[in-house]
Amino acid sequence: MGLKAVLVIGDGMADRPVKRLGWKTPLETARKPYLNHLAQKGICGIIDPLSPGIPPGSDAATLALLGYDASKVYSGRGALEAVGSGMKVLPGDVCFRCNFATVNDDLVVTDRRAGRIESEDAARLAESLQKIELKKSFGVDFVFKNTLQHRAVLIIRGAKLSKAISDSDPEQTGKKVLTVKPLDSTPEAELTAKIANELTDKFSEVLKGHPLNRERVKRKLPQANIILCRGAGTVPNVQPLSQKFGVEAACIGAAPLIRGICKIVGMEILDVKGATGTLQTDYLGKAKAAVQALKRCDFVLLHVKAPDIASHDGDAEQKIRAIEKIDGVVGHLLDNVDLDSTYLAVTADHTTSLATGNHEGDPVPAVIAGPYVRRDGVAVFDERSCAKGGLNRIRGLDLMPILMNFLGRVDKFGA
Amino acid sequence: MGLKAVLVIGDGMADRPVKRLGWKTPLETARKPYLNHLAQKGICGIIDPLSPGIPPGSDAATLALLGYDASKVYSGRGALEAVGSGMKVLPGDVCFRCNFATVNDDLVVTDRRAGRIESEDAARLAESLQKIELKKSFGVDFVFKNTLQHRAVLIIRGAKLSKAISDSDPEQTGKKVLTVKPLDSTPEAELTAKIANELTDKFSEVLKGHPLNRERVKRKLPQANIILCRGAGTVPNVQPLSQKFGVEAACIGAAPLIRGICKIVGMEILDVKGATGTLQTDYLGKAKAAVQALKRCDFVLLHVKAPDIASHDGDAEQKIRAIEKIDGVVGHLLDNVDLDSTYLAVTADHTTSLATGNHEGDPVPAVIAGPYVRRDGVAVFDERSCAKGGLNRIRGLDLMPILMNFLGRVDKFGA
Repeated sequence: MGLKAVLVIGDGMADRPVKRLGWKTPLETARKPYLNHLAQKGICGIIDPLSPGIPPGSDAATLALLGYDASKVYSGRGALEAVGSGMKVLPGDVCFRCNFATVNDDLVVTDRRAGRIESEDAARLAESLQKIELKKSFGVDFVFKNTLQHRAVLIIRGAKLSKAISDSDPEQTGKKVLTVKPLDSTPEAELTAKIANELTDKFSEVLKGHPLNRERVKRKLPQANIILCRGAGTVPNVQPLSQKFGVEAACIGAAPLIRGICKIVGMEILDVKGATGTLQTDYLGKAKAAVQALKRCDFVLLHVKAPDIASHDGDAEQKIRAIEKIDGVVGHLLDNVDLDSTYLAVTADHTTSLATGNHEGDPVPAVIAGPYVRRDGVAVFDERSCAKGGLNRIRGLDLMPILMNFLGRVDKFGA
Repeated sequence: MGLKAVLVIGDGMADRPVKRLGWKTPLETARKPYLNHLAQKGICGIIDPLSPGIPPGSDAATLALLGYDASKVYSGRGALEAVGSGMKVLPGDVCFRCNFATVNDDLVVTDRRAGRIESEDAARLAESLQKIELKKSFGVDFVFKNTLQHRAVLIIRGAKLSKAISDSDPEQTGKKVLTVKPLDSTPEAELTAKIANELTDKFSEVLKGHPLNRERVKRKLPQANIILCRGAGTVPNVQPLSQKFGVEAACIGAAPLIRGICKIVGMEILDVKGATGTLQTDYLGKAKAAVQALKRCDFVLLHVKAPDIASHDGDAEQKIRAIEKIDGVVGHLLDNVDLDSTYLAVTADHTTSLATGNHEGDPVPAVIAGPYVRRDGVAVFDERSCAKGGLNRIRGLDLMPILMNFLGRVDKFGA
């Protein structure tokens, strides 16, 4: 039987020591017998997802952990989310993450989520927005689709476009909607910015007069009277994992961003009932799905969003709980996967600090267990214990070659 | 007296833990008092010869350990072997490693080494092959020379040529000889492939009718009726070590590949009687030669091929024996070299796995002893002990600058 590998990524699972945990990190505080057992069976280390001190976005970090040089292939978040939401994105399309939001008459944002508008209402509005006709002279089409609640995706397609444009979303209430501006002096950026502004205006016109918004006023709900855009991006041009390492690969993860990245690198995207990308996700369901997927695939990525959400909320207890749930996932994998033929790796995509609420540039702990690793005597899986391990300190980009080499899937360089 | 350095490379000496050694590596199992003593006196670490997870060829790894960026300068193995076999190679020449082999009437390889044909027989055949005349329209000459037993080198010279061509050697018995194909769409690659195929055909014609092959049939030996080519390469364009670091450098090693690389980087190549590049090489002779060479040179590379051979054969006991012999080499150096003025470093060019029989991408252990190193308390020279050392985890490319800096030979960058 061929060798296989599972990689579990706890989103934002790593942290800095915090006072309220007695200057320990959540990983150092959580009860996690299975993760510790894995550390004892494996080789441990710390990973700089991108490079030391650089706080990584989840998108760039996940690309790196999948073996892609984010500094070369990363091309904005918009397209990753669009693909992850099941939309078809073509090379050259410029995609945006959008919000239905509420502004006052001065275009000052009063609610960035339009009262967390229900998906059904958003769908009705989106349908109307899709009917807008752009000036023929632009030479482009657009696709506008709501996803979950206030979230939506906009794709501009057709002419020579550029992702080098700024956001209209000020990302704060009380601030005015921004005019989208070209970020370089190319005609493509200028055109794309012009179209984005034109669409913002036309969307507003339609939304303002929309019967649903009159209904919302009656229901004392904030109107969804503007679409805010951010994160312009194109689909990165990457060699699929199947070509890079000759593996059949699958992804188990609910977050659209992660699903988008995995789809773009050619992985099969598995749906797990109850996997929601929230703190209440079905952890065991994901673990079971990974065990099943390993029967068909050589490489399975299991992504858990929960610790990152808790970190951004500054909620230490929730973060510890999420880590303990991930420990349960590892427990299920340890019980159902043969470590004589399967490599089991666990890491985080970045440090998210409970104290700052932000992604930080500190390295993340990592462990790889499996038949031929050089066990290193590390007995505990956390930031500081893993720093003493046999992997020492590597880059996110290095993880997949190491894993895939254990599977015999990396070509020799030289002879 | 100036500071000096010796670097001992045990080819493929590093390994993964294996079951039959109680999940230890050969280095962890071997009796190696001198290597351990060196670790105690030195600073230890692990080295990724190229980068984490990438299995290195010995050629690329040795270039890296000599301070050259293999990803930039590596240009195929053929020319390195040709130079190492004492042949003159000019810039632009495309060189191949060749085998005298045996094929049946369907061009299926039945013996990749033509019964390990004796060097004398191969020389007679090579002489006839060298007389072949190529079409004038190709505008090229060729040089064909047998080296040891079934091994030979082919050099094509003259026109604009390319090393971007495939092999004719299927590298397996029972497979048909391959047609050489251009690997890119340049006219140079197309021409070189055409010439290689033409030569293969003409070589076969001459070999088939050669009286020596009729004799071999009578002697019940496999005919040497085809020349298989692989590893097309050109001479890498590198700055000599003497310019890079201002050192007089010498190489002690029997393997033609290593001798070729060292010659190309401008090192003096020393011949040691009894140094054979095999498991039976004269270890002590090499150690003595290194001590002698240090009287004239600033830097001496001592390369031992034996552990790699044992690894490829999956022979744990032979590998352990080869390591114990290398330990003896280190013992002789420790007894005869003044560590107050000489840095003594030991590492491997790559991990060769007894379990897979292949080069693997795991890091290799390294030690540097000498007057001013920061001793780190590591007391044992092996993969896992060195991973705890003060060098931490570095790249192959970093070793020479570190060593040469100890010798005061690295220019300051900046002011």
